[in-house]
Amino acid sequence: MHKNRIQCPDLLGKVISAQEAANFITKGMVIGTSGFTKAADSKAVLQALADRTLNENLAITLLSGASLGHDIDGHLAENNILAKRMPFQSDPVLRKHINSGEVLFIDQHLSETAELIDNKHLPEIDIAIVEVAKINEDGSLVLTTSVGNSATFIARAKKVILEVNLSIPTSIQGIHDIYYLQEHPIRTAIPITESHTRIGTDFVPLDISKVIGVVFTDLPDSPALVALPDEKTKAIAKHLIDFLQNEVKAGRLSKNLLPLQAGIGKIANAILEGFIESDFSDLTMYSEVLQDSTFDLIDAGKVSFASASSITVSAECYERIFNNFDFYRDKILLRPQAISNAAEVIRRLGVIAINTAIDCDIYGNVNSTHLCGSKIMNGIGGSGDFARNAYLSIFVTPSISKEDRISHIVPMVAHVDHSEHDVDIIVTEHGLADLRGLAPTERAIEIIENCSHPIYKPHLKDYFQRACENGGQTPHLLKEAFDWYIQYMETGSMQALVEIEA
Amino acid sequence: MHKNRIQCPDLLGKVISAQEAANFITKGMVIGTSGFTKAADSKAVLQALADRTLNENLAITLLSGASLGHDIDGHLAENNILAKRMPFQSDPVLRKHINSGEVLFIDQHLSETAELIDNKHLPEIDIAIVEVAKINEDGSLVLTTSVGNSATFIARAKKVILEVNLSIPTSIQGIHDIYYLQEHPIRTAIPITESHTRIGTDFVPLDISKVIGVVFTDLPDSPALVALPDEKTKAIAKHLIDFLQNEVKAGRLSKNLLPLQAGIGKIANAILEGFIESDFSDLTMYSEVLQDSTFDLIDAGKVSFASASSITVSAECYERIFNNFDFYRDKILLRPQAISNAAEVIRRLGVIAINTAIDCDIYGNVNSTHLCGSKIMNGIGGSGDFARNAYLSIFVTPSISKEDRISHIVPMVAHVDHSEHDVDIIVTEHGLADLRGLAPTERAIEIIENCSHPIYKPHLKDYFQRACENGGQTPHLLKEAFDWYIQYMETGSMQALVEIEA
Ligand SMILES: CC(C)(COP(=O)(O)OP(=O)(O)OC[C@H]1O[C@@H](n2cnc3c(N)ncnc32)[C@H](O)[C@@H]1OP(=O)(O)O)[C@@H](O)C(=O)NCCC(=O)NCCS
Ligand SMILES: CC(C)(COP(=O)(O)OP(=O)(O)OC[C@H]1O[C@@H](n2cnc3c(N)ncnc32)[C@H](O)[C@@H]1OP(=O)(O)O)[C@@H](O)C(=O)NCCC(=O)NCCS
Repeated sequence: MHKNRIQCPDLLGKVISAQEAANFITKGMVIGTSGFTKAADSKAVLQALADRTLNENLAITLLSGASLGHDIDGHLAENNILAKRMPFQSDPVLRKHINSGEVLFIDQHLSETAELIDNKHLPEIDIAIVEVAKINEDGSLVLTTSVGNSATFIARAKKVILEVNLSIPTSIQGIHDIYYLQEHPIRTAIPITESHTRIGTDFVPLDISKVIGVVFTDLPDSPALVALPDEKTKAIAKHLIDFLQNEVKAGRLSKNLLPLQAGIGKIANAILEGFIESDFSDLTMYSEVLQDSTFDLIDAGKVSFASASSITVSAECYERIFNNFDFYRDKILLRPQAISNAAEVIRRLGVIAINTAIDCDIYGNVNSTHLCGSKIMNGIGGSGDFARNAYLSIFVTPSISKEDRISHIVPMVAHVDHSEHDVDIIVTEHGLADLRGLAPTERAIEIIENCSHPIYKPHLKDYFQRACENGGQTPHLLKEAFDWYIQYMETGSMQALVEIEA
Repeated sequence: MHKNRIQCPDLLGKVISAQEAANFITKGMVIGTSGFTKAADSKAVLQALADRTLNENLAITLLSGASLGHDIDGHLAENNILAKRMPFQSDPVLRKHINSGEVLFIDQHLSETAELIDNKHLPEIDIAIVEVAKINEDGSLVLTTSVGNSATFIARAKKVILEVNLSIPTSIQGIHDIYYLQEHPIRTAIPITESHTRIGTDFVPLDISKVIGVVFTDLPDSPALVALPDEKTKAIAKHLIDFLQNEVKAGRLSKNLLPLQAGIGKIANAILEGFIESDFSDLTMYSEVLQDSTFDLIDAGKVSFASASSITVSAECYERIFNNFDFYRDKILLRPQAISNAAEVIRRLGVIAINTAIDCDIYGNVNSTHLCGSKIMNGIGGSGDFARNAYLSIFVTPSISKEDRISHIVPMVAHVDHSEHDVDIIVTEHGLADLRGLAPTERAIEIIENCSHPIYKPHLKDYFQRACENGGQTPHLLKEAFDWYIQYMETGSMQALVEIEA
């Protein structure tokens, strides 16, 4: 019965099947589950829940750290189990259900969910379902590949279900740093001053009387889909690294820069790979997710320490990490997302934040979440936590996609996640726009000239020039500001507009 | 020669006229001036500069704390002296010059300007012009009615001009708390844990070798225009206070709430006056500006301590404060704006932030800066610093204005300063929308039902319902999202649209 995994005698008798555990979940409940960018999600209980007969219309509210793996969000949505979902998702099936209005999605800054629970600004959590590697003798818990909101869910939920994952080596103990924000009005500073500062415990305390079931699993995390660097991402990486090298030359940064954050997504990962070839050394990361690129940079001797809330890597990298865990153990730390994404720490450390935009406009307002203003892609995730508080807030995006049918630089974004105030640098494969110290009309010239694709550039210039004729701090032509999106929705291409106009 | 005002012997010989001081300012210079929401601005040197002959085309870049008084921004703009202005302004004449494209305006989060200077992300400051009450024997400075960015300007500028204001009693010494953010990567926490925590000195250190002139003035600050509470602001205050009283009943807040912030503007001030009649007691403020309402609340025994970056009050209140300074002295503190508006402190203290919106949309995205998407009003000021990090982020606005020609609730705002993620509560005279824990489509119903004006409500409902037919997380009809603004610009009223549609 895996006594090395359940060292707390009182909990040995709580072992049940996933199906039995899932049966505790009843109509309208609020569930908090582990799982952050596919790492350490519930692999048994939520799956069993999804497998329960249809038509129960359970209408649960599901909170997580961030996105879940194993298509579980999709299964839950398809089986009509979700009423509300927060704070992040990236499942194509769930996305469809959200955009059709069947599931309500609350898109939150990832730093804030735990705060909102603590402040009782969200409904009370009925059951927490949390993956663990091990239960210590006193009932305290060793987490697995992410922390996310798990510590808060465990502390605040009325009842707790634990999923002991046998595929995670118990040697993982030690890489977590569990810390709780104190309550208002007696909160003190989060005492992190460097990426590696330890401020908490390597376990999550547990009131064992809340445990209603312990379930075993042995499924590994869903592997991350890693895109190899291609011409576009290599060009973006080059522009960015040239820029940072110039900052070093200008004396604004030293050779080890400041702690890096890199957002989720194929592009950010591919760009980080570019740092392997750079002159920088002794780099650190204060980020949200550790992707393959982080471990490649550690292996290359470029990154000396990386702090985040989860490890989300390919199957190959996953093997490499756990086969060489003693090598990586003292170079990484996983924190609650309220800490990995804390405004106060990001600003204090001076993080250099690199996130991917869905698109951005000529003034540097960035959309990270919506397609054509209405349909959600994933969610804001931690992009706002980092972009607002970073020492440098960088957004990367290809200049075009779907061949050339979409321009990622548009006259006006139809959804704003990050306003011009929070965006310092925009990079596409064509170049880099350095927006520091520029007024909106100067920003427009810099962005259009350096970042837009040649086939869209004349049309962006034309829009900007005609808008300027009407004046304003941020000149716009409201009658045509969204024409590019409208054309795309009607014809499948923004090019159509360009051709008509030409 | 006012030896009690200039106690540093080396600086006695530096006394010059305002005109002589202004002559130090040459083409293309970057100037940093004291002044925050009209308090402690340069009253002699910048005025003398504005009076210099026209056609010199000085093209200076002017940084301040926030807005300046004495119409100085307008005079400088009219006399063609400004090329660039940051981080805030509220002058009607300068506004015209910005919107016509003659002056470039960089609209910044007020917390960030000092950071950007420290990080060298802005050009170096040639001359700092700072109002002081007194120069101590060692050259250190006692500031007057605001701190703003003055301490940073003094520390970073190549040269310094001081304006000793004889109208400010030297007894003001003691209400300032000067603290500098440390540089990356060795920064530690800002050690404030309560509104009244003192962390610095009551003077600004000065390298006296940088001083190129000391000028005397005796002009008081421009008085704030205080609007008395009217039917609308009384109704808004009532909705807000009822809401907070319910939060106390629900056990989420105690009777002294959490520290309050109230934005600039007539509405916020009038609303705070409403707290005088409330049941709350022992309130504190951690804000940006102390307006008349703060002192009225102190007098009424409702507020026990108020921290901010400036005192901006009516002439009557100004007199009252300085005639009773011993009473107020230990109840107020003025901090650099990098500290009064620091994300880390606002989140740690759990500030309840009350700011005014120009308008907001049915999903709760807020515009604080632009009229109809292009023309700037004032600037984002500290609204983003507070809204993002607050325990509760509240925006107030009248439901309509210009009789009924403008609806302040619109289908889609044409400029986003605060996205739905950063807005918890919206209040108009018609009611309060509590958006906590709601998805966008739920937010829309709450906002339209509770906040919109009856003449616009059916049309907002109609837009929302038709948008929902197309689906999406945030349903919009891009072809008509801005029609209300377009109608207003073309006909002078949004009502025109409503009538046409009806
Ligand atoms: C922005 C984000 C979706 C980019 O991720 P990515 O893996 O680089 O990009 P993806 O390929 O998954 O998605 C972009 C897709 O949207 C499409 N797209 C972009 N703009 C579009 C538009 N206006 N209309 C329709 N589709 C559009 C792209 O063409 C691309 O589709 P494709 O893959 O079929 O070519 C992702 O980074 C994200 O969700 N960010 C928000 C959260 C975040 O930034 N967190 C940071 C802290 S971890
Ligand atoms: C938003 C803000 C301008 C409101 O200030 P206020 O004193 O309450 O309002 P004002 O009367 O000065 O300005 C609003 C004007 O814009 C007009 N207006 C609003 N929406 C408009 C629109 N869509 N088109 C044209 N005019 C519009 C109003 O009718 C009003 O004009 P009026 O005075 O002629 O009736 C002010 O609070 C501000 O600048 N905020 C940004 C900075 C900030 O919030 N700082 C907070 C920390 S201190």
